Amino acid sequence: MTFRYPNGKKFVQKRSPSASKNVKKDERFSNRGMTLEEDINETNEYYLAHNIAVIHKKPTPLQIVNVHYPARSAAVVTEAYFKKPSTTDYNGVYKGKYIDFEAKETKNKTSFPLKNFHDHQISHMKQVVQQGGISFALLRFTLVDELYLVFSKDLFSYVENKDINRKSIPKKDIESFGTKIELGFHPRVDYLKIIDKII
Amino acid sequence: MTFRYPNGKKFVQKRSPSASKNVKKDERFSNRGMTLEEDINETNEYYLAHNIAVIHKKPTPLQIVNVHYPARSAAVVTEAYFKKPSTTDYNGVYKGKYIDFEAKETKNKTSFPLKNFHDHQISHMKQVVQQGGISFALLRFTLVDELYLVFSKDLFSYVENKDINRKSIPKKDIESFGTKIELGFHPRVDYLKIIDKII
Repeated sequence: MTFRYPNGKKFVQKRSPSASKNVKKDERFSNRGMTLEEDINETNEYYLAHNIAVIHKKPTPLQIVNVHYPARSAAVVTEAYFKKPSTTDYNGVYKGKYIDFEAKETKNKTSFPLKNFHDHQISHMKQVVQQGGISFALLRFTLVDELYLVFSKDLFSYVENKDINRKSIPKKDIESFGTKIELGFHPRVDYLKIIDKII
Repeated sequence: MTFRYPNGKKFVQKRSPSASKNVKKDERFSNRGMTLEEDINETNEYYLAHNIAVIHKKPTPLQIVNVHYPARSAAVVTEAYFKKPSTTDYNGVYKGKYIDFEAKETKNKTSFPLKNFHDHQISHMKQVVQQGGISFALLRFTLVDELYLVFSKDLFSYVENKDINRKSIPKKDIESFGTKIELGFHPRVDYLKIIDKII
C-alpha cells in the first residue's frame, strides 16, 4: 500500500513481520522492490532481536476527526488527515546513546533535493545535536542504489541556504562527507557500524 | 476529544499549542480537567523551548485500511483501526542520554492495576534498560492527584508475577520505591529533576 502525502512525500504502510515472512524473495535480486523504509525496518528488527539496539520507526501522525463505534466490534477511525511529522521518523537507544535519524530517497542522479527535508525536521535535528544526541540522515540514490549516512551537522549549512542559492546537495559532496553503506543480508543496512566509529 | 481503545485505554487527542493558548485557565484550580498526558505534553514543550531536553510523545499508531483522494484537496483516511503501541509513548534525549517512559493514570486509591501495562510495553522497557537507556513510568493516582516516578527496574518483578499472585502494585510500595512529583506551574510535572539524581 503506497500513496503520497499532500506535500508529495511517499507513505508506505509498514509490513508486519508475519506478512513479510510470506513474501518469496528472489535471492539474486534481493533488493528488488524493497524501499529504504523496508530495509531500515528489517535492520532495526535485526538489531532488536540480537540485543544490539532498540530503534523504532514512529507511527505516521494523523489528525483524527471522526471515530465510529460499531456494536460489538473495534472502534473505526472514519475520518483522519495526514499531518507533517514534527520530528524525524526513527529514534532509539544504542549503548546508552540517543540515536535519531531520518531516511530519504531520491531518483535524482547527481544531487539530493533539499525539499525532502521540511523545516520541522531540521529544527528537530538541531535540537537533538544540541542535547548531545547522535543525529543523522540515511540518503539513498535509488537509480544507482547507493546509500549514504550523513551526519546532521554536515547538512545544516546546505539546508539553511536553501532559499538563497541551493535547492539540492551535490552527490559529490555527499560522497565526500558522507559514509557509504553497502547493502548486506542480515542486517540489510548496517548503519550502526558507522556510529561505532564516533562513540 | 476523548475515547477509549478496544482494550479500554483512554485516547486523548493532543491539543495543538495554538489551541491551548486560547483556553482560559482558572488559576485557583489550574489542574482541573488536565489529563496526565496534557501535563506531560506541556512539560515537554517547556523543556524544548528552554533547550533542556528533546522529548516527544509518539503519534497514536493506526492501521490504515482505506484512503480517499478527493480532487484538489488533501487525502482523507476513511478507514483505520487503533493498534496496540509496540513501545512506550514518550522518548527523547536529555544531556545525551536516552530517555524513555510511559504515563498511566488510575482512579484506584490504594493500588495501581497492572493491566495498565501490556506485554509489548514491558518487553520494550526491558530492552531499553538493557541498552543503557533511562526507562521509567509516571503513575498518577487521579482521585488524590498524586504523581510518582517509578524506575522500570522496580516494576518488573510485579509485572512478571501478575498472572500468579498480583493484579496490582500496592500504593504504599509505589510511595516507597517511587519519587513523588509535586505539580508545578512551569513546568507542570518536572520529572527530569529526578533523572538528574541518577545521571
